[in-house]
Amino acid sequence: MIFTQFYLESLGHASYFVGAEATGEALVLDVRRDVDVYVAEARRHGMRLRYAVDTHQHNDYVTGICELPTRADVQLLASAHAELGYPVRALADGDRVEMGEVVFEVLHTPGHTPEHISLLVTDRSRGDAPALLLAGGALLVGDVGRPDLLGGPAQTQALAEALCQTLQQKILSLPDFVEVYPTHVSGSLCGGHIGRRLSTTIGYERRMNRLLAHLSAQEAFVGQCLNLEHLPAVPPYWRRMRALNQQGPPRLGTLAEPPALQMEAFDRWRRDGAVVLDCRAPEAFAAHIPGALNVGLGASFAPWAGTVLPADAPVLLVLEHAGELWEVCWELLRIGYELPKGWLAGGMLAWRTAAKALDVLPQWIVWELAQELQRPGPLVVLDVRQPQEWAAGHIPGALHITGAELPARMDEVPQGRPVATICGSGYRSSVAASLLQQRGYRDVVNVLGGMEAWRRAGLETVSEGDPQA
Amino acid sequence: MIFTQFYLESLGHASYFVGAEATGEALVLDVRRDVDVYVAEARRHGMRLRYAVDTHQHNDYVTGICELPTRADVQLLASAHAELGYPVRALADGDRVEMGEVVFEVLHTPGHTPEHISLLVTDRSRGDAPALLLAGGALLVGDVGRPDLLGGPAQTQALAEALCQTLQQKILSLPDFVEVYPTHVSGSLCGGHIGRRLSTTIGYERRMNRLLAHLSAQEAFVGQCLNLEHLPAVPPYWRRMRALNQQGPPRLGTLAEPPALQMEAFDRWRRDGAVVLDCRAPEAFAAHIPGALNVGLGASFAPWAGTVLPADAPVLLVLEHAGELWEVCWELLRIGYELPKGWLAGGMLAWRTAAKALDVLPQWIVWELAQELQRPGPLVVLDVRQPQEWAAGHIPGALHITGAELPARMDEVPQGRPVATICGSGYRSSVAASLLQQRGYRDVVNVLGGMEAWRRAGLETVSEGDPQA
Repeated sequence: MIFTQFYLESLGHASYFVGAEATGEALVLDVRRDVDVYVAEARRHGMRLRYAVDTHQHNDYVTGICELPTRADVQLLASAHAELGYPVRALADGDRVEMGEVVFEVLHTPGHTPEHISLLVTDRSRGDAPALLLAGGALLVGDVGRPDLLGGPAQTQALAEALCQTLQQKILSLPDFVEVYPTHVSGSLCGGHIGRRLSTTIGYERRMNRLLAHLSAQEAFVGQCLNLEHLPAVPPYWRRMRALNQQGPPRLGTLAEPPALQMEAFDRWRRDGAVVLDCRAPEAFAAHIPGALNVGLGASFAPWAGTVLPADAPVLLVLEHAGELWEVCWELLRIGYELPKGWLAGGMLAWRTAAKALDVLPQWIVWELAQELQRPGPLVVLDVRQPQEWAAGHIPGALHITGAELPARMDEVPQGRPVATICGSGYRSSVAASLLQQRGYRDVVNVLGGMEAWRRAGLETVSEGDPQA
Repeated sequence: MIFTQFYLESLGHASYFVGAEATGEALVLDVRRDVDVYVAEARRHGMRLRYAVDTHQHNDYVTGICELPTRADVQLLASAHAELGYPVRALADGDRVEMGEVVFEVLHTPGHTPEHISLLVTDRSRGDAPALLLAGGALLVGDVGRPDLLGGPAQTQALAEALCQTLQQKILSLPDFVEVYPTHVSGSLCGGHIGRRLSTTIGYERRMNRLLAHLSAQEAFVGQCLNLEHLPAVPPYWRRMRALNQQGPPRLGTLAEPPALQMEAFDRWRRDGAVVLDCRAPEAFAAHIPGALNVGLGASFAPWAGTVLPADAPVLLVLEHAGELWEVCWELLRIGYELPKGWLAGGMLAWRTAAKALDVLPQWIVWELAQELQRPGPLVVLDVRQPQEWAAGHIPGALHITGAELPARMDEVPQGRPVATICGSGYRSSVAASLLQQRGYRDVVNVLGGMEAWRRAGLETVSEGDPQA
């Protein structure tokens, strides 16, 4: 049995290729949209892609399961409980898919979503004990898949109860030695405490996973699952993903290269309403094209692009290097955006030497912020971190709106007052600051170093329990 | 904790990078000679290489542990039982190496070699249970590290007994859920039945590893370990590796590019005694430069190059494509050879259009061999497969000398008679045929498809138990 994991840090997403040496067939699980990685893996082993399956209809990215048939004659599989707009072979609890020496046993594992399945994999060339569990969004490394993504409190409560039973009856009933390979891994927002490693075992999680400690008392477990303080805020683009994945995303087919746009063509698009997405680091965004949004290319690019970009806006890119073009394009395509209309040829060098207008985003270090806060004044400190981070300590008097919620809650940020945005390090706060500027806030600064620097500088924080908080 | 596995198929070798996020330090285990892969991994995570350790002084490749200090300020670690020609920090059973959230507990695990250690790794960011075992050549996927590589029967017996105790007391005493990452993996000749996956767990091996079933009776286990019928023959280059690794291999430093040699320069080297190593497939080797040895670049290149190439011979390469040059060079450097003197510019196209002499190696399909064997005659069938393969069925009357033993046992192949070489598929037999031709055997043919084709064609085989065998 051949087994390969593919990891995308910015989505915290792992997908899997399982190949049977006896027949040369392979299965892909939780397919991402850039499917050529699987085609290449099959080629490398001289195998043929035969099956593709999603453990559930994901909330956080666009599935590539409908793209794969453009490359290979694959049969699509899905949970019998899934409601899909494309034909699949339905898998019910207890079903088996056999492929040479490999057997996949289907476990219906609702909780993260109602239709969720996990696949228990046995390599018969070694023997009849299961070797590993492809756990999707059920059991994660140090965490469980959050049950609150699909609806209101009642549905979340029901899913949390289902998750509790799934874990007790379907997953923790497996032997300790079974390896666990989840789909939602480090970097994913589908859990609040996902660990850094990309695999684990049933027995290790049984002992070390704090959420599972509550399992024996369903009420306590459900309470723990519903404790939204511990869960990251949901980026706006997630609302579109599940329906798109159920219906079957459009096929990408052949992708045209987004063109290098000379200054005037770029500026024409911009004046016609295209959104400028500036992929440089916060420090560089200190001077930027008026109206540009800043999402630095890096480990968190996808969720932040999906936070600030409207669903259908034409996008123009500002890149640090031309070589980043397709990395950015794939990040966008994977979360359901169209290809950008183009990118600025020559980058910021071309823009600034053309004497075009530049907006500035002043960058403060934490000492400058502390000094400003000493004197009475109208300065608003806007903290855009996750609830868990905020709860662990924040600047007295700061306003808390998570970055993910900012687009919808911007009217809570007072108009006409200076605003200093802050996060953990200065990356997310730069995203937020750029969004404020784009929406007309004139007096915005970004705090470089963020709360990490604030704390290391020994400056005052308060936390939830404090009377001052 | 960051954990990365590096896999080299042709050596069946896995090495490991373990990084501590708390301190940005990393450890590399069972270092290969092309150490830049570890430097790049450290760079990717913004970490610093701090420690390097070999679980044992390997028999099958040259360690890169002495090369790493040319790239980074690493501390070298080794078993307290190792006898080394370079300074290290000695690790005794029970010692701990701490690196931020990561703890390595040293287990002295003799058997494969006397000094052998394994590292039990705990990620304290998750809790105090061990997460994984870096098992070196102790417990393998579906196998154990062979104990017969260091000396005569008495030493092998003692090591097999030690291995039995290591497995019982040090390894199988670990909990089922601990993941196991061995150094000798699929493709390695350090075991006879190594499975295809690149990791496993204690509990899975406890249940599925056939050798461990004999553990409770030490005598039976030792007998099983000493059953050389089940173990692959040892390539000649292995005899040099352990001493070199103990003494500390010379540093490679900056490597000059082996030059593209024009025909005349190439031929001058050749006439002066350089060995021509032809890296093309067996089919292409049907016509080749006189005296060339054939080791096709691919999954088994390293052990076969290490079988036919003398330790210090100057080497000339014939490549299928120029782009393969450094892949071949690294395969050779990793097993202790010097860089080749150069490679034939223009490849075989240049040679044949220059009207230079060509030798042929006739290629038979199995039906041609069967037909030849029908009629009485002096044809010798030389089967060069592993003992295990031979035992499972061979051509009646064939002569069996494993490919690895052929250089030392060539005088057992009758002179003056036609020889047909056969293996499993035609790859190893082409290596053997080229060696026979180089040593003066004139009437040699290679059987394409080998015993696999022979069996599929329904032709007669006998096996050990048969009276005819």
